[in-house]
Amino acid sequence: MTLLKSWVESANSPETQFPLNNLPYGVFVTADDEAHCCVAIGDMVLDLAVLEDDGVISVTDEPVFDLPFLNEFMDAGKPAWDALRARLIDLLSADGDDTLRGDKELQSVAMAPRVDAAMEMPFVVAEYTDFYAGMQHAKNMGSILRGSPDLPANWLHIPIGYNGRASSVVVSGTEIRRPLGQTKAPDAEVPSFGPSKRLDIELELGAVVGTGSTLGQPVSVAQADEMIFGYVLLNDWSARDIQGWEYQPLGPFQGKAFGTTISPWVVTAAALEPFRTATPPREKELLPYLNEEKPGLYDISLSVTMQPEGADRATTLTQTNYSRMYYSAAQQLCHHSIGGCAMNSGDLLGSGTISGPDPSEFGSLLELSWAGKKPFTLDTGETRSFIEDGDTLTLKGEARGDGYKIGFGECAGKILPALETPFK
Amino acid sequence: MTLLKSWVESANSPETQFPLNNLPYGVFVTADDEAHCCVAIGDMVLDLAVLEDDGVISVTDEPVFDLPFLNEFMDAGKPAWDALRARLIDLLSADGDDTLRGDKELQSVAMAPRVDAAMEMPFVVAEYTDFYAGMQHAKNMGSILRGSPDLPANWLHIPIGYNGRASSVVVSGTEIRRPLGQTKAPDAEVPSFGPSKRLDIELELGAVVGTGSTLGQPVSVAQADEMIFGYVLLNDWSARDIQGWEYQPLGPFQGKAFGTTISPWVVTAAALEPFRTATPPREKELLPYLNEEKPGLYDISLSVTMQPEGADRATTLTQTNYSRMYYSAAQQLCHHSIGGCAMNSGDLLGSGTISGPDPSEFGSLLELSWAGKKPFTLDTGETRSFIEDGDTLTLKGEARGDGYKIGFGECAGKILPALETPFK
Repeated sequence: MTLLKSWVESANSPETQFPLNNLPYGVFVTADDEAHCCVAIGDMVLDLAVLEDDGVISVTDEPVFDLPFLNEFMDAGKPAWDALRARLIDLLSADGDDTLRGDKELQSVAMAPRVDAAMEMPFVVAEYTDFYAGMQHAKNMGSILRGSPDLPANWLHIPIGYNGRASSVVVSGTEIRRPLGQTKAPDAEVPSFGPSKRLDIELELGAVVGTGSTLGQPVSVAQADEMIFGYVLLNDWSARDIQGWEYQPLGPFQGKAFGTTISPWVVTAAALEPFRTATPPREKELLPYLNEEKPGLYDISLSVTMQPEGADRATTLTQTNYSRMYYSAAQQLCHHSIGGCAMNSGDLLGSGTISGPDPSEFGSLLELSWAGKKPFTLDTGETRSFIEDGDTLTLKGEARGDGYKIGFGECAGKILPALETPFK
Repeated sequence: MTLLKSWVESANSPETQFPLNNLPYGVFVTADDEAHCCVAIGDMVLDLAVLEDDGVISVTDEPVFDLPFLNEFMDAGKPAWDALRARLIDLLSADGDDTLRGDKELQSVAMAPRVDAAMEMPFVVAEYTDFYAGMQHAKNMGSILRGSPDLPANWLHIPIGYNGRASSVVVSGTEIRRPLGQTKAPDAEVPSFGPSKRLDIELELGAVVGTGSTLGQPVSVAQADEMIFGYVLLNDWSARDIQGWEYQPLGPFQGKAFGTTISPWVVTAAALEPFRTATPPREKELLPYLNEEKPGLYDISLSVTMQPEGADRATTLTQTNYSRMYYSAAQQLCHHSIGGCAMNSGDLLGSGTISGPDPSEFGSLLELSWAGKKPFTLDTGETRSFIEDGDTLTLKGEARGDGYKIGFGECAGKILPALETPFK
C-alpha cells in the first residue's frame, strides 16, 4: 500500500500521521463552541457535521455527526463505515470528486487547523474491559509479584480479562489526580491510608466496538472482527500498591479506577487493514471457538515518553509493537461474548500491557524499574522507579507504510498531586 | 412506624408489599404501549407521567417521568426525591390532598391494576459493581474453594468488590440462557468447551446510585448514603465451573456476565429508613474513612425459592436477612470512590451474596449443596445441587413494620437450555 495523494498538501508529507490513508475519527469543539464529529487530514480537521448538513455526505436518515460522540455512526455498522470512508477518500483525494476540493467557501466552514482544535472524548464509553494478553508482560508480572515467570494455568487457553470502569476513561490531555487508597507493606500488621506511592502506566491499544450483540448470543472471532470500528492508544494508569493489596481474590478495582487515558483519534480498522499480522504461534492449542481465520493483530509501533514538570524534553522509556500480543482484539471480543454477554456500541477493550522480550520494550514502569529495584535515568539526569507528581507520560503509535504512516495523535496525561484531604 | 392509611384500599392490607409507606418506583408499559415511570400502591400502579403532564406533580422544568427509565428523576437528587415522596403521600393518603382522590377520571387514566402492568427495567444501569461483603459467604467460599474458612487478608479492611457487566442486567421475568464457556476439571489436562454444569444464583440486594460524583473527588460514607436512591433485589447468576477456571488472577468475568436479574421495583432509601440497622461489630478496626456515622444496613428479610419446569409449587431454599452483611452500601460506595473513581446516576452496587450462619440461611446453591457434596431435596421430591434447565429461581424480600410490610415484588428468572451451537 502506498500513499493516497490528497489535495490537502499537508496530508502528503511523509511526516504526517494523518495522510488520506488514515482518516481517523474524533470529536472537536467548533468555533461556535459545539462538539462535532470530524476526521483528521494532514494538518486539518474536517467537520463531518457541516458536510452532513450540506448533504455532501450521508450515513442514515437522521444526522449522526452533529453530536459530541461517534456512537451513532459506529452503531450504523461496517457497510456504513466502508461507504463513508470511500466517499471521504473521493472528496479528499487529489483527483476525486471536486465538491469540497473546488469549493473554497465550503472548505472555510468545514475545515479548521488541527493545531487549534480542542479534542474531546471521541465516543461515549459504554463499558470498559481490560485484557492481559501480552505474554512478556504476564511473565514479568509473575516474576515480580509471585517470584516465577510461569504463566497462570489458564493464560494460554483464555484471553484473560476483567471489567474496568468506563467512568474513569478520559481523553488525552486530561490531568490525572494521584489516587488515595489503602495499601499494606509486606511487613506491616495493618493497612494504611494515603496517596499511592507506586503510580504506573500500562501501554495498551484499545479496540472500540462499533456494533453490538444480543444477550445470550455469542459472536465468533470472524463476527467480532467485523464489529470492531477502530483502535485508540490507551494508557491504563495503575496504582500498583493499591492494586497489590486489593486484588485478591476478585481482581483489580480502585488501583485501576482513577483514570484511563485514550487518544482523541480512533484509527479505523479499515485504515489499519494493510498492517494486519497474525498472532504468534500458539504454545498450546486453542479451543476451536478462539481460532482466528485471518491475521488479527496489526503491525503498529508504540512508544512511551516521560517528561518531568519543567523539563525541556521528554525521555523515551520504551518502544515496542502491538504485534507482540498473544491474543487479538477479535479473539478477546469473541471470548467476551462466549457466555452470552451482550456487547454494545462504545464498548472499549484494552489489549493488556504490551511488552516485548527486551527490557527496552517493557510497557510499564513496574517492569522497566523491576518494581523499583532498578531505577532508570531520564535524559534530564533525574531517576525514576514510578511516576512523580508533575510528570507527563505520553503514548504514541504509528503503522508504517510505503512512504506514509498512520498515527493516533498522542495519548498524554500529567499527574497532579493527591488531594490533601479525601473529602469535600 | 405504623401503617400510613391510603384511600387506595388494597394498600391498607397487612398482606400487601406496597402500602403507602413503600411507594417504590418502576417503569411499566401503558395501555398505549409507552413506557412510563410509576409507583406501586396496593394492587395498582400510579402513572407518574400522567400526573406530571397534568401538573399534579413536578420535579424539574423538563418532564422526567414520560421516559423508559428513572435516571432523570434519580439524578435530580435527594431534595427532589424527598419532595416528591411527600407529595405522593399527600395525594394518596386517606385524608390528604384530594386532587387525585376526588377525581375518578384522573384515577382512570393515571392508575392501572398492577397485575396487568408489564414491568420493564426501572433504570438504565450505568455500570454494575458486585461486592463480596457477606462474611459467612466469604468463609463458606474459602472452605469450599480453598479448603479453609479463613477470610482473605484484606477482607476485614476493604469492602472487596469487582466491576461486573452492566449489559447483562435484566428485569425480573427475563429468561436466562445457560452459558457456554471454558471449564477445566481438576484432573483434566486441558480445558473443554460446553454448557456450564454448575449454574448457580447469588442472593443479593442491589443499591441504586441516584446522584453521581466527579472523577478525582472521593465521597465520604455520609455523602455516599445521601447519593443512594434505593434498593432492588438482585440475583447475580453465576456459572461456578466457568468462574473457577477463569478467575485467577484478575477476577470473575464470563462466569458472571450472562445475566444478573433485578426486581422491577426500586424501594427507596426513604421508605427503608425505619428499618435501618447497624453493621455488626468490627472484628478489626477500620481505616477511618470507612467508619459509618449512622446505621448503614436495613432489616430486610430475604428468601429464595426454586420451581422446576412443570412443578406445581416452589420450594423455599433459603431465608436470611440483609442485616447479615459486614459492610453497608454506603461504605461500599465510599470505597468505590476513594481513589477518585467517578460514580454516576444509575450505577448499581450488588451487596455480595447474603448468607447467614445457619445452612438454612445460605444465599447460593454452591453453599446449600456444599459444592454438590450435599444435594438438597425439593418439595417435589427431586434433588438438586445446581440449577437444571427449566428451573425458575425467585428472590423475595420485605421489611416488616408494625402492621405493614415493605416489599420489592419479586426477582425471578427461568433458565433456558444452552445454545446447541455457539454462533449464528
